[in-house]
Amino acid sequence: MTSEVNASNTPYDAAAQRLPILTRTIAEFREKTRELIEAQPLSGAEADTVRVGFVPTMGALHDGHGTLVRTARAANDVVAVSIFVNPLQFNDPVDYERYPRTLDADLELLGQAGADIVFAPEESEMYPDGDPLVKVTSGKLGEKFEGASRPGHFDGMLAVVSKLLHIAQPSLLTSRKVEFSAFFGQKDAQQLAIIRRMVLDLAYNVEIQAVPIVRSDRGLALSSRNQFLSEAEAEAALVLSRALFLLKSRADAHEPLNVEDAVALIDAEPLVELDYLEVVDPSTLEVIGVNCQDTPFTGQALALVAAKVGPVRLIDNMPLGS
Amino acid sequence: MTSEVNASNTPYDAAAQRLPILTRTIAEFREKTRELIEAQPLSGAEADTVRVGFVPTMGALHDGHGTLVRTARAANDVVAVSIFVNPLQFNDPVDYERYPRTLDADLELLGQAGADIVFAPEESEMYPDGDPLVKVTSGKLGEKFEGASRPGHFDGMLAVVSKLLHIAQPSLLTSRKVEFSAFFGQKDAQQLAIIRRMVLDLAYNVEIQAVPIVRSDRGLALSSRNQFLSEAEAEAALVLSRALFLLKSRADAHEPLNVEDAVALIDAEPLVELDYLEVVDPSTLEVIGVNCQDTPFTGQALALVAAKVGPVRLIDNMPLGS
Repeated sequence: MTSEVNASNTPYDAAAQRLPILTRTIAEFREKTRELIEAQPLSGAEADTVRVGFVPTMGALHDGHGTLVRTARAANDVVAVSIFVNPLQFNDPVDYERYPRTLDADLELLGQAGADIVFAPEESEMYPDGDPLVKVTSGKLGEKFEGASRPGHFDGMLAVVSKLLHIAQPSLLTSRKVEFSAFFGQKDAQQLAIIRRMVLDLAYNVEIQAVPIVRSDRGLALSSRNQFLSEAEAEAALVLSRALFLLKSRADAHEPLNVEDAVALIDAEPLVELDYLEVVDPSTLEVIGVNCQDTPFTGQALALVAAKVGPVRLIDNMPLGS
Repeated sequence: MTSEVNASNTPYDAAAQRLPILTRTIAEFREKTRELIEAQPLSGAEADTVRVGFVPTMGALHDGHGTLVRTARAANDVVAVSIFVNPLQFNDPVDYERYPRTLDADLELLGQAGADIVFAPEESEMYPDGDPLVKVTSGKLGEKFEGASRPGHFDGMLAVVSKLLHIAQPSLLTSRKVEFSAFFGQKDAQQLAIIRRMVLDLAYNVEIQAVPIVRSDRGLALSSRNQFLSEAEAEAALVLSRALFLLKSRADAHEPLNVEDAVALIDAEPLVELDYLEVVDPSTLEVIGVNCQDTPFTGQALALVAAKVGPVRLIDNMPLGS
């Protein structure tokens, strides 16, 4: 009896390590999410709207994902997370097989970050007939930058995200008003731009929220790949964010960007082999020529960088302009 | 005063020629539809769910569309219709320019058929940035049969249907439980199969309803193109449905289909030039070989036919099996 009283008196506590509800099928995930929505307290006109936040992941979660989920938690009443290693976005089947599956650790991290419910389907649940026949394609947006070194990657990503956004969309069969948002990391800037474009071109009923890059104290963007860097490589890798911050300080001051200075900075670092450093339109990913010369920077842009640091390929990016 | 009393006492009457609400923008269409949903009377547990039916069209409506809308009307509380001549699904720009725009007559027909609200956007509302960058593609489903003579047609169709299904989906910001269905004619069987496949592969939150072909007394499938047939050609065109009904009677009797008999029937008609007559899987559109030989017919299939009758290309089809 005492425990019952305690339980009902306990307010929501993100640190309580309460594990989220684990679902394996689309039907179960949708139904349990609907129950969570219906169970939200009605406490006045404002609270009449239930805010549902969705965070799609491939599992093997690190603190960057934790930040994504905590951001979703802070802005929503119900937080759903998917964990699905999507075979269609791997170019290399060996890479796909080797991708770490760490469900128990993931659930613990998600519980601590405040997720309410997790959808972790088998491949047969997501693709019951094998590869989808009808596909979403990113066109020229997906051919450049990361797409150039991973052909088909972004179309494979869209195959699963186009479906997950429908699966995670709260059921119309709820008696509550619902706002639905999905949270993506700014780290994968090209992925984010392509998803935003899909939502626009197909008029998806979801608000896309970008969560800023989490950096180490010295500026390195968090990535699960950083663990493969030697000490010297990790030191050398700092040049990537230094180059981006150089561009940002010039953009903030409305000075000419002179991107070649940032390129020179990276080229001076022998352990780093630059793939690309480009300033692009954040929406179309077209390279912005005019702002890269002697013209004072105005407007909005995105600086993208990719480089090999020792054996590890790293990406980073920086929004420029307000 | 008298008219006010009359108006409020008038129950819904499909024959009253009341014109539907006309909307031109996505925002207005969605908001007015939401108001219609919220305004549905609450009269018990069952009626708590509001059924919304959507019928996408390209306008130039005839009685086949009337049947579609009346079918949606009979099964739903709110009926929405879109009228949009989609440039992306025309191979020939001249064809697109010439396509009849008859909005006033369309609205009258839709009012009589019981539509509540119409969404008739300009091209700039649907494609504000020109062609969409992210596209939905029908793959091999869209390459055969009608797709073989109209390359790109089905991808253009998906570009607009993938978006319209999101636009017409009732807003999550309603306080009512909603069921959402979209109605398509069985006449365009390949289009219907591709849309069903998109809904399956992308997990769209909509129920797709197929409305059977409407035929003349003598069996000819209704089409706006029938008006271009001479009297002799209209007589000759009857062989298409006769061939399909032959296959249906054999399927119903679980006899071998022997499709070559149906082909011979059409070949014997000098005014008709057969393009294809095939028995296919209704979902994958793969030609079913085994049922076309001496094997008794079992299961489910779809017979598809296309032919030129004089200057006019006609299509027809028939579901086989229960």
